[in-house]
Amino acid sequence: MQKLDCDVLIIGGGPAGGVCAVTAKMNYPSKEILVVREFEVQLVPCAIPYIFGETLGCSDKDVASCGAAVDMGISTLLGEVRDIDFSGKIAFTTKEAIHFDKLVFATGSKPFVHDSLRHSLGLEGVFTVAKNKDLIDKSKAYIEDKNEVVVVGTGFIGIEMAMELATSGKNVTVVGGSKHILKGAFDSEIAMQAEAILMRAGVKFIGDDRVTAIIDENNDNIVNGVELKSGKVLDAEVVILATGYKPNTELAQKVGISLGHYGGIWVDEYMRTANHDIFAVGDCSARRAFITKVPSKVMLASTSSAEGRVAGSSLYGLQYIKGFSGTIAIFSTMIGESAFSSAGVTEEEALEAGTDIVVGTFSGVNRHPATIPGAQKQYVKLIATKHGGQIIGGQIIGGTETGEMINIIGFVIESGLNVYKLMSMQVATQPMLTAAPTSYPITMAAVNIIAKMEKR
Amino acid sequence: MQKLDCDVLIIGGGPAGGVCAVTAKMNYPSKEILVVREFEVQLVPCAIPYIFGETLGCSDKDVASCGAAVDMGISTLLGEVRDIDFSGKIAFTTKEAIHFDKLVFATGSKPFVHDSLRHSLGLEGVFTVAKNKDLIDKSKAYIEDKNEVVVVGTGFIGIEMAMELATSGKNVTVVGGSKHILKGAFDSEIAMQAEAILMRAGVKFIGDDRVTAIIDENNDNIVNGVELKSGKVLDAEVVILATGYKPNTELAQKVGISLGHYGGIWVDEYMRTANHDIFAVGDCSARRAFITKVPSKVMLASTSSAEGRVAGSSLYGLQYIKGFSGTIAIFSTMIGESAFSSAGVTEEEALEAGTDIVVGTFSGVNRHPATIPGAQKQYVKLIATKHGGQIIGGQIIGGTETGEMINIIGFVIESGLNVYKLMSMQVATQPMLTAAPTSYPITMAAVNIIAKMEKR
Repeated sequence: MQKLDCDVLIIGGGPAGGVCAVTAKMNYPSKEILVVREFEVQLVPCAIPYIFGETLGCSDKDVASCGAAVDMGISTLLGEVRDIDFSGKIAFTTKEAIHFDKLVFATGSKPFVHDSLRHSLGLEGVFTVAKNKDLIDKSKAYIEDKNEVVVVGTGFIGIEMAMELATSGKNVTVVGGSKHILKGAFDSEIAMQAEAILMRAGVKFIGDDRVTAIIDENNDNIVNGVELKSGKVLDAEVVILATGYKPNTELAQKVGISLGHYGGIWVDEYMRTANHDIFAVGDCSARRAFITKVPSKVMLASTSSAEGRVAGSSLYGLQYIKGFSGTIAIFSTMIGESAFSSAGVTEEEALEAGTDIVVGTFSGVNRHPATIPGAQKQYVKLIATKHGGQIIGGQIIGGTETGEMINIIGFVIESGLNVYKLMSMQVATQPMLTAAPTSYPITMAAVNIIAKMEKR
Repeated sequence: MQKLDCDVLIIGGGPAGGVCAVTAKMNYPSKEILVVREFEVQLVPCAIPYIFGETLGCSDKDVASCGAAVDMGISTLLGEVRDIDFSGKIAFTTKEAIHFDKLVFATGSKPFVHDSLRHSLGLEGVFTVAKNKDLIDKSKAYIEDKNEVVVVGTGFIGIEMAMELATSGKNVTVVGGSKHILKGAFDSEIAMQAEAILMRAGVKFIGDDRVTAIIDENNDNIVNGVELKSGKVLDAEVVILATGYKPNTELAQKVGISLGHYGGIWVDEYMRTANHDIFAVGDCSARRAFITKVPSKVMLASTSSAEGRVAGSSLYGLQYIKGFSGTIAIFSTMIGESAFSSAGVTEEEALEAGTDIVVGTFSGVNRHPATIPGAQKQYVKLIATKHGGQIIGGQIIGGTETGEMINIIGFVIESGLNVYKLMSMQVATQPMLTAAPTSYPITMAAVNIIAKMEKR
């Protein structure tokens, strides 16, 4: 067994591990940083759906580069850590014994499949959306000449997969266990607009039913269809299980690291476990929501990156006294020609939690005047606390600019700002790039909230 | 003379006056609001250049709607206020005597032309870019069948005019008094990238010279060319003077309102003159810069709108204790396929003012992975104070999303946040809409500043 030595050992080479490594090297240039990663080629996780349609078309176009890390002098090792001796500070792969000073779990997540469907994973034609190039290539090749596809799950990955497959000519049905798609990120009235686009693209959506069984009628180990709770049966040559992800904590559990809610590794605001030499970042950590502080299942590479930066700056004592006080859950996606974005809590979530809120909306256009070629409708919804008018959530539908507009709302939420701050915020507006200065939609939605709060 | 009566009289129906009227009606629904405006049809000022090319093609597509104001019960009157009796609180047009309780100047700005060129304004073929539909229609009709155009001025309006005219087939030369275009908004290295796009579009740019005379060689009252300081002469069938705007304060001066710097009406943070019944908003007010607090010549409809909101909420006592503490000067423009945006102070401005700064930059791509169709380069430059790392300026080059990204930086400047806040800010990232989560360019530029500040 080969003996290796490093200062900081990071297990996992995804977004969280990568950003943590780069940040650590920047903060502690004299320290030896070693990243142990499972795959030679790391996919960009959020773009996996685009491999299946014409947007990317193949997994070779979805490869994450780690050139910058290598240039900085960060070492990487292909392998899998299988055991850890905490007292001796040694991690073991099958071939190496790696001595470390600080250890970071960045082991990511694995597809979650409900118990009732798990035994069907062996059938030909049944796939999860794994962050693994070989598996993705296999499923892509299999789907290539098939036509009838059932996507199980109505989260971002499921919907993006469905749209890509539909626009490349497949007959796609999405089955979700919730009435509307993208539940949690969007309120019903906004999700319904996304559903209308799905339908126009030829995707069928069954929201009020769920898949209870995957069918292999001929007993030939090849999928034929799915059975729904209602008893209805759908034909399927391919079934894609996009039913979420779960923290990959096999190793952590084996070596006795304490887990938090939803199976993630428990960490504090600086991403430290109870042992301050051991950190966890990214999807393998237990998260909570920024506003409500309740356990959160949200898994996003952007959150993982922010966590990686906090951990990478806190390995040898606290440097930036801020920490990571929960995920704001900022999402974006593109459905057809429209972008849908969300940050913070939705109206439905807030009401369910009994929060006193005021909601403001504004419908406008993303260019000014509206006659500018390519102008698209823009809709902004803001959710504020009734007492104080603090912004706690926002949702936007619009053109591609929506992806950055939601980051303004994210920033407002993260900074704890209220509608009065937003009311006279200074923005740049330009005919070819934004809405009109006189009716900038974020400002107008805030003004709408003020009007309701003060009931004039 | 007809006698009219109102509570709030707003002189001017541009962005500042319009937003002020709507805000006032929202805040004081029982008050009678009257807007006196000069033109039946109000152009959207920032889109005027697009009338001259194929983007809009005619002024009828660039009309601002005041439907919302009318629906709210705001009255408007076509006319021009020519005198004011402050003791009796009466404003006089040629036909009406309007009694008011509160008065808001929103008289906007007029094209500024240097003394040495002013006498040439009478020549056929010499135009300013006035916010006046009739004048714009006249110049557009005149230019239609001409070919040789000289644009004097290298600000946003001049450059946008030049690009629109060039892409519609004219032979365009831009002459500026400064070495680089868009001075004040962009540092030289960024302006040079914009200049390269101009040149590729066929626009000639003469930066190190300036127009000293407009030539009418045949004494037929038709322009033939321009003479430069160097002695060089350029042929010109059309000369467009895009040499900035000056506050329209004729009325204010006549009635003895105190002016501030650069000829604007002096106002405090709530847009009040020394007389708290008299306000001024928009381009006719004297502005100062948000960060440096020095007098500012920046005129933007977005700033005017923010001022209109502050005044409209402060007419009868202060409601929202925030005020307007200076213009952040947030600009955007589109040059060819690239958007250029700026907020706050530039590096050159900061150094000239002797500010201790640290500059951070990042070059990336606006989609992830970079293989996503339509991906464009994205460049972010941030300027922070050396002591504390507070963000005081930013510049971005990228795709259309740049127009909203700069608003994130604007918000950071307005909120007084520093690079440490930005380092772990939570953002939404999505392959089709944004840069990668692991290298979100605003974060990366902030990280670059931290690295320099802490010189590790």
